Amino acid sequence: MWGMDWRAGDHLLLTDCEHHSIIATVQEIQRRFGIAVSTCPLSKTLNGGNPVEMIASHLQPNTRLVALSHILWNTGQVLPLAEVVAACHTHSGHYPVRVLVDAAQSVGVLPLKLDELQADFYAFTGHKWWCGPEGVGGLYVRPEARDDLHPTFAGWRGVTTDATGHPTGWKPDGQRYEVATSAFPLFTGLREAIALHHQAGTPQDRYQRTQSLSHYLWQQLVALPGVSCLRTQPPEAGLVSFQVRGQSHPQLVQSLEKENLLVRTILNPNCIRACVHYFTLESECDRLIEVIRQKLEGREN
Amino acid sequence: MWGMDWRAGDHLLLTDCEHHSIIATVQEIQRRFGIAVSTCPLSKTLNGGNPVEMIASHLQPNTRLVALSHILWNTGQVLPLAEVVAACHTHSGHYPVRVLVDAAQSVGVLPLKLDELQADFYAFTGHKWWCGPEGVGGLYVRPEARDDLHPTFAGWRGVTTDATGHPTGWKPDGQRYEVATSAFPLFTGLREAIALHHQAGTPQDRYQRTQSLSHYLWQQLVALPGVSCLRTQPPEAGLVSFQVRGQSHPQLVQSLEKENLLVRTILNPNCIRACVHYFTLESECDRLIEVIRQKLEGREN
Repeated sequence: MWGMDWRAGDHLLLTDCEHHSIIATVQEIQRRFGIAVSTCPLSKTLNGGNPVEMIASHLQPNTRLVALSHILWNTGQVLPLAEVVAACHTHSGHYPVRVLVDAAQSVGVLPLKLDELQADFYAFTGHKWWCGPEGVGGLYVRPEARDDLHPTFAGWRGVTTDATGHPTGWKPDGQRYEVATSAFPLFTGLREAIALHHQAGTPQDRYQRTQSLSHYLWQQLVALPGVSCLRTQPPEAGLVSFQVRGQSHPQLVQSLEKENLLVRTILNPNCIRACVHYFTLESECDRLIEVIRQKLEGREN
Repeated sequence: MWGMDWRAGDHLLLTDCEHHSIIATVQEIQRRFGIAVSTCPLSKTLNGGNPVEMIASHLQPNTRLVALSHILWNTGQVLPLAEVVAACHTHSGHYPVRVLVDAAQSVGVLPLKLDELQADFYAFTGHKWWCGPEGVGGLYVRPEARDDLHPTFAGWRGVTTDATGHPTGWKPDGQRYEVATSAFPLFTGLREAIALHHQAGTPQDRYQRTQSLSHYLWQQLVALPGVSCLRTQPPEAGLVSFQVRGQSHPQLVQSLEKENLLVRTILNPNCIRACVHYFTLESECDRLIEVIRQKLEGREN
């Protein structure tokens, strides 16, 4: 986000479903450059309504960037990204509207064709759905948007120099965003992790398996008395968020962890989020359901 | 450097001996915030003159940051950093002058007491003189300077949040500069590397050994006809820069590499730079001298 040439009064649009890391960065940029920030209530479209229209209606004449997630980390909603991007790119304001995508929850899950999605900046981390090493991720920059995104951190790998070694500019391609000596083995680790997933099936096959498993889990959760899923329709990807009546979510998460069932709390909306990958077992879903059922029936005490 | 709250017209002082990664970052900040940048000709003090006076005389009323290296990467000169910092901190301008130190060549070499040096920001990489893993380093921020350095990249490890998870500010201590999920094994690797050096002797002992070896190499280089060292006095740390008359430096470096003698060219000033660590062998210095002597005598052809 720092790479845009921000001017006071520029507008940045967020959604109400972004991770606090994104919000904190936006707050700092707002403070530093005097930009205007607004937040569109995307969470209202979880079970109806049109997210594309919602976002489009929040664009302003001076909007320069829309920052949103492809898959919302809290509710698991999958945004129709190509349509969102098209709406932003056809907006007639003072600037071309750039779309920055937090792809933390979508890369490694959705079959992706970035050239078709046309998102300007698509940023992911390798340690989540790719199960790669911690500390490495990637940023896709659409070639047409490259001039709007200057490198923030500069290093010898990204700059061009003259005969005396003095920097003269950025490398012409994406290498401009590479900095200096890096943890190169992590890159190999991530590549190998991705290759391993590809051995397990096509992206489309893996996505369908994930969907079918999360659908399975969602159905069972919905059938549990005292449990309600945030979504009234089956999940579109691997995140399944739900609420349990009469239970402290943090305490429930902790006791599930003791049973080797790893789920997490989300604070807004207040819920528990389970993740289902394509390699998750149905029996693991069953066990999660069974332990929650026991808790609800107080059988443990 | 991005963490300072730059305003148009603020002044940043560089030296003419900084790495092009630093210069490129300064150029980008200059372009983005409209700050004034000037470069003081520190290289003139390599063999005489007073670097502290030189730097102090280049401070301006609106100087906010002085960015320099503790050990200059091209000539190997060691700056009297405590005195430089004192001169900057006692400068009476519109702002407190902050000192940012590129410690790439000094950490792992010099015995350091950062609280005595009083530098505001002291940044090092672990893969150079610590011989640690690539991709991890550190930044020391003097507590008194912390409010002048906002985090640039924000993440869940550095922010405070309210009951709904919304970010409310930065962690009170240095943790504010930590971002999110990182390559944690690298941290352990660096710690282990540092521990290994400490087993080899105290920082003072290791530094003296480095000095004595670089002095040894420098003396032999000076005695070689056709070779001149940039410094007319023995080196103060491990970098020994020299020029060889009648030879292409890149070609000479390449042929030395074939003999497993790893040195590098520097473009400004045009020279070859050798590095001597405390564990370098005298016999390795001798071999470097011998191969250069052979090249100069054309015995190889």
